[in-house]
Amino acid sequence: MPQLLRVQNFAVSSDGFGAGEGQSLERPFGHANPVDLMSWAGATASWPNRTDPGGSRGLDDYFTRDFTHDIGAEIMGRNKFSPHRGPHDPDWQGWWGAEPPFHTPVFVLTHHPRPSLTLSDTTFHFVDGEPEAVLEQAKAAARGKDVRLGGGATTIREFLDADLVDTLHVAVAPVRLGSGVRLWESPDELRDRYHCDVVPSPSGVTHHLFWRR
Amino acid sequence: MPQLLRVQNFAVSSDGFGAGEGQSLERPFGHANPVDLMSWAGATASWPNRTDPGGSRGLDDYFTRDFTHDIGAEIMGRNKFSPHRGPHDPDWQGWWGAEPPFHTPVFVLTHHPRPSLTLSDTTFHFVDGEPEAVLEQAKAAARGKDVRLGGGATTIREFLDADLVDTLHVAVAPVRLGSGVRLWESPDELRDRYHCDVVPSPSGVTHHLFWRR
Repeated sequence: MPQLLRVQNFAVSSDGFGAGEGQSLERPFGHANPVDLMSWAGATASWPNRTDPGGSRGLDDYFTRDFTHDIGAEIMGRNKFSPHRGPHDPDWQGWWGAEPPFHTPVFVLTHHPRPSLTLSDTTFHFVDGEPEAVLEQAKAAARGKDVRLGGGATTIREFLDADLVDTLHVAVAPVRLGSGVRLWESPDELRDRYHCDVVPSPSGVTHHLFWRR
Repeated sequence: MPQLLRVQNFAVSSDGFGAGEGQSLERPFGHANPVDLMSWAGATASWPNRTDPGGSRGLDDYFTRDFTHDIGAEIMGRNKFSPHRGPHDPDWQGWWGAEPPFHTPVFVLTHHPRPSLTLSDTTFHFVDGEPEAVLEQAKAAARGKDVRLGGGATTIREFLDADLVDTLHVAVAPVRLGSGVRLWESPDELRDRYHCDVVPSPSGVTHHLFWRR
């Protein structure tokens, strides 16, 4: 089986933004309310951060359940890892506490060097380089499994522009942001390169599933 | 996490039949054409019997991809295992060849004893007993993972009547059979006990996802 590069459970607003403007420590999604973008996922039984045994097991749960399935590494942008810009704050260990939900090597794209950081079974590597080279590193680390492209929107765009993304699952949430970090003007932009299933969920989001033509 | 009993990728006709009448060696689904019921699954990249590297990676693929995910055992009816009735033909080893797609212990419900049969990493155990007792056996064999209830329709009905099924994924195919082995008159029969997401797929089937209220 070929190793795929997959975008999973990435949420955008109805006008195409993956995050708002003005990211900060207090507001990781800037002026966007993360609940508006991600409540469909938080309501499911398989949501990695769930602390009680409840949760729905319908359509949305297939997507959160698939999050770790056959994934051996993640690639993410610097702004997904941290609210800082420029050189790293060596005390910052990500947003996820002592048990990050990745459970694999994670490659953080950054122009600023930093030693690797291990938290539980997740190790963050800080890498500089072209998308092709970083993907090659991540595939090697994934040991035959697929690689998740974790976002944010700018990072996904960069890998789309290099034509390296094999599949995408993007949940379009019923909220307008007006401005922010844009993934697309419209999902139709990808149709020349990808098949697309558009699947409305009872939760209010519309799942967009893309795979290569 | 509690161990669940899950129905997955079970296909029925629009009038509620999981198989037609007159099962035989030549016609495992009786007068029903299995292509009408299962082509949605066969078209996906993750279909277990796929021999070429193609296949779709849209909505339907999430369901076939989930087939083995966190499953530690299967329970199936005698008529899913074999076209025979009465005592077992000791030469019959199931429909699936030397590499059955289960990769776990499988508990075949039958009133006729037969020694266990191992093919590759699947072992079929032939068991007689009430649903509760068989489920207990299967959960022990699944070592903490979930148990798949593999069908056919009569076996699923039996476990539904005993209120032992935690989740169901039933794909309703756009074909009428008129008669056969019935799962339901209508999916609405289950709504008093289960939440239900009804999800039309571009392939033409309508996925019905049930989880306990």
